[in-house]
Amino acid sequence: MTETPHHLYDKHADTLSRALTAITERGYWSAYPESPSPRVYGETAAADGEAAFRGYLHQRFPLDQPGTDGWVATEASPFGIELGVTYPHAGAAALLAAATAALPAWRDAGPQVRAGVCLEILARLHAHIFELANAVQFTSGQAFVMAFQAGGAHALDRALEAIAYGYAEMTRHPATAEWEKPAKGEPLKMTKTFHVVPRGVALVVGCNTFPTWNSYPGLFASLVTGNPVVIKPHPRAVLPLAVTVRYAREVLAEAGFDPNLVLLAVEEPGEALASTLALRPEVKIIDFTGSTAYGDWLEQNARQAAVYTEKAGVNTIVVDSTDDFAGMCRNIGFSLTLYSGQMCTTPQNILVPAAGIATDQGHKSLDEVAAGIAGVVGKLTGDPGRAVELTGAIVNDGVLARLEDVRSVGEPVLESRSVDHPAYEGAVVRTPTVVRLSAGDAETYEREWFGPISFVIGTDSTAHSLEIFRATVGEHGALTAGVYSTDEKVLDAAESAALEVGVHLSCNLTGGVFVNQSAAFSDFHASGANPAANAALTDGAYVASRFRIVQSRRHS
Amino acid sequence: MTETPHHLYDKHADTLSRALTAITERGYWSAYPESPSPRVYGETAAADGEAAFRGYLHQRFPLDQPGTDGWVATEASPFGIELGVTYPHAGAAALLAAATAALPAWRDAGPQVRAGVCLEILARLHAHIFELANAVQFTSGQAFVMAFQAGGAHALDRALEAIAYGYAEMTRHPATAEWEKPAKGEPLKMTKTFHVVPRGVALVVGCNTFPTWNSYPGLFASLVTGNPVVIKPHPRAVLPLAVTVRYAREVLAEAGFDPNLVLLAVEEPGEALASTLALRPEVKIIDFTGSTAYGDWLEQNARQAAVYTEKAGVNTIVVDSTDDFAGMCRNIGFSLTLYSGQMCTTPQNILVPAAGIATDQGHKSLDEVAAGIAGVVGKLTGDPGRAVELTGAIVNDGVLARLEDVRSVGEPVLESRSVDHPAYEGAVVRTPTVVRLSAGDAETYEREWFGPISFVIGTDSTAHSLEIFRATVGEHGALTAGVYSTDEKVLDAAESAALEVGVHLSCNLTGGVFVNQSAAFSDFHASGANPAANAALTDGAYVASRFRIVQSRRHS
Repeated sequence: MTETPHHLYDKHADTLSRALTAITERGYWSAYPESPSPRVYGETAAADGEAAFRGYLHQRFPLDQPGTDGWVATEASPFGIELGVTYPHAGAAALLAAATAALPAWRDAGPQVRAGVCLEILARLHAHIFELANAVQFTSGQAFVMAFQAGGAHALDRALEAIAYGYAEMTRHPATAEWEKPAKGEPLKMTKTFHVVPRGVALVVGCNTFPTWNSYPGLFASLVTGNPVVIKPHPRAVLPLAVTVRYAREVLAEAGFDPNLVLLAVEEPGEALASTLALRPEVKIIDFTGSTAYGDWLEQNARQAAVYTEKAGVNTIVVDSTDDFAGMCRNIGFSLTLYSGQMCTTPQNILVPAAGIATDQGHKSLDEVAAGIAGVVGKLTGDPGRAVELTGAIVNDGVLARLEDVRSVGEPVLESRSVDHPAYEGAVVRTPTVVRLSAGDAETYEREWFGPISFVIGTDSTAHSLEIFRATVGEHGALTAGVYSTDEKVLDAAESAALEVGVHLSCNLTGGVFVNQSAAFSDFHASGANPAANAALTDGAYVASRFRIVQSRRHS
Repeated sequence: MTETPHHLYDKHADTLSRALTAITERGYWSAYPESPSPRVYGETAAADGEAAFRGYLHQRFPLDQPGTDGWVATEASPFGIELGVTYPHAGAAALLAAATAALPAWRDAGPQVRAGVCLEILARLHAHIFELANAVQFTSGQAFVMAFQAGGAHALDRALEAIAYGYAEMTRHPATAEWEKPAKGEPLKMTKTFHVVPRGVALVVGCNTFPTWNSYPGLFASLVTGNPVVIKPHPRAVLPLAVTVRYAREVLAEAGFDPNLVLLAVEEPGEALASTLALRPEVKIIDFTGSTAYGDWLEQNARQAAVYTEKAGVNTIVVDSTDDFAGMCRNIGFSLTLYSGQMCTTPQNILVPAAGIATDQGHKSLDEVAAGIAGVVGKLTGDPGRAVELTGAIVNDGVLARLEDVRSVGEPVLESRSVDHPAYEGAVVRTPTVVRLSAGDAETYEREWFGPISFVIGTDSTAHSLEIFRATVGEHGALTAGVYSTDEKVLDAAESAALEVGVHLSCNLTGGVFVNQSAAFSDFHASGANPAANAALTDGAYVASRFRIVQSRRHS
């Protein structure tokens, strides 16, 4: 129960301190370089990481977990290569018993020691960032650079951000306080001790597209606040989280803690292990990224737990006018192309007055706006070799099915194409489609069409666009929104609407910042204020309920 | 959306600043003097307050709320005096429409202005503290001094504490930030604005015993973070919250805001207005103090809202040994007598080894320990005139029914007596009963017997006592726990057990601090870590989810 100095805390105290400053400033900061350049990471890092990744293939993954009763393989790479990694399977009871047994010593280690150990886990993962990037690439379908950045450096930044918020929250008042109340005669004196007590076992349910980026905040927010964490990856994206669990357990054991503080829960097909775990009384925290249906189910049914969900949404851009038409089209077109629109933050609905808009190139009709954006997508995806480095591959058959379905709605401005990947013969690559709809097609555009599908929607006016924006996002949620206008009043109206429906707004992005990107330590990801998510990454609300304060007091 | 300087913020900035320091130190601090002495509050304050209270009786309460469709009176004073105050009734739809309409301007006023206005409301309530104290006394049955302290000064302190936490949370990072990311060529620059956005309408459901103390933290935590608040008082304790709403609305209107930011919701008998309100989609936050059954119902059913509950529990003291037998008996006996045990923090189960304990007065048998505690209660309640100033009156018939029921269990060490109140002929006064049970009587002592009922329970040993403590509190919850021991190992074991079951522990209280009292700004009330409550008053977790951050970003 007492906090003893720990060499891992000392080792990482400066990083933690800088991160604690960053979350109060919310300006630019990053702890993990996002460039996979050999100048940053060394000449052999890329090859070593790829070799480590290849070493896992067609093998039992090296994880010594309790209760292992079999080995399962559930992955299929979007790049068409055979992975063949098998993972240890255990039942919910065995996993939760092991996690529960690990709790007391971790709780009693206190915030500083836990923060030190968590930061050492990040350092270890960072040392294996190329290995992680390969694992993310070949399970999610992301192109390598994106897998390295979003799945490696940015995921680590978000993890550190979550640790910083957790640490700040646990230490916002001292561990002990002297209370002295004036009284007739002698003052009343008490010594008070405030213990940080974790909620119980935490469950993280990972997603297919961003297995690390979306899981790390919950994982580390729960772990640093004292909760053992059971990680249930998406069946098609196990490897990145298996690698994570491997190194986390290694660091925990080296630091003298029970490695079962972090456990991988892999399911047999059809086993529904996440649901079994989610309803167990030991599980007190759940972090989930994925479908609205399953997120809602968790919120409704896992009543014993604090549930943090990121679900589907309908990201929207309102186009009113611009003083940089080319920049606008470039920016939006790039957003649609990146990872073939398979980001939860990719814009889907682009609302444009049917009468066209004013631009630096004069009046542009609705067709010209649609063609401008589609033209950029077409250009970015014209050369297969360059295309695949942006689009990556299609994550699963659900996306392909939607690409088929969308052919029956609206007028295509740009058709999706199949691209042969120059390096991976079996890779499933599709370029984005852009479809024209009118404001009356609400039944179509009010749904999420996750994947390389977006709609340019003709409206009566910008006021009408804002009305549709309010209605769609208010009812169906969104993680991102954008607006283009040269009129401050329109920007203000868009900001008012965004406040009302609780979505983050990007204004007039025409350069190197994209609406689907959020920077750790500065941008909040999701708000918790609309149906697309019930929490934000990462803020006080995201961490504060992951532990409780239990107090004792004695006469001084 | 912009924050303009406000004279009410300036006026109260020092108090807010001191409160912000207090919540980081958690030592002793109080903003509102707890002594009702004329030296503190002035020679006429007491009489003026009583006159104001009497002025409300047999009248329509002066509250000009929208949608009033009738006037209802539901109160009956435990002191037997006729109150006859009628309150305006309105339906849920009218109340929520008015609250919702008030939201945008309050949100856009920003954290500073809201904090200033909230502190002015506290100042206004403080100026009417005697009026409030009378209202609390004559609805809850508390004796005057307790009503003044718990219902007045301490309630205001807890309100200020909640405001401070809310303000700290809203301002933990700046309202705007400059983001500048190094890039090839020119750095990327964005200006980011972080808006504090309230969740929606907040509902506060008050209780009978502590109408202000238990309602103020939720009320002010929600209000300062931007949410309009609808207050649904307990039907038998409306007046204290009606007075609160009256002055809150007065201040809001004076400050240029819609007074419907704070509304009183009074129900017709059998109307179940709280349940109707709790399930409405506009209601996004609920604070409730009361029964486990209703608290659980809210948690299970009000799925659209963040629900904070304080429910029933089984408060427990473990007696192992003491170096101050007389002090221990005095301290426990006083705790049982205060407000005739009708505090949610009053100890119920006192676990003592059947073989007796070591004390400074030599070995004391279980009978002697029970007699020692009962003797203090007997002495404190021997003289009717002095008794009623401690016990107050019995809050409602449920307590009387339990006093009847308990006659059929165990062996009474001290019988409850009816006392004639010297000042109020119709007052229903009962002194505490102390009943001896054995460890096998779990069916009896594992339930909450809210009221002047406590059990001295003989156990096999202190280890056995701790086992029972763990089992009872773990399963049924508790708001407070105590331990008496001269052995550090026993104190540590008790502290470990308390951590495990998540209850605050008081050690060896023998002086002027009592297990059923918690000091604002220092002690946390409830922990949220056991079934008696799902949140603590007041910490980061209590405020952080009452608002969201919605961000916008533009090129700098």
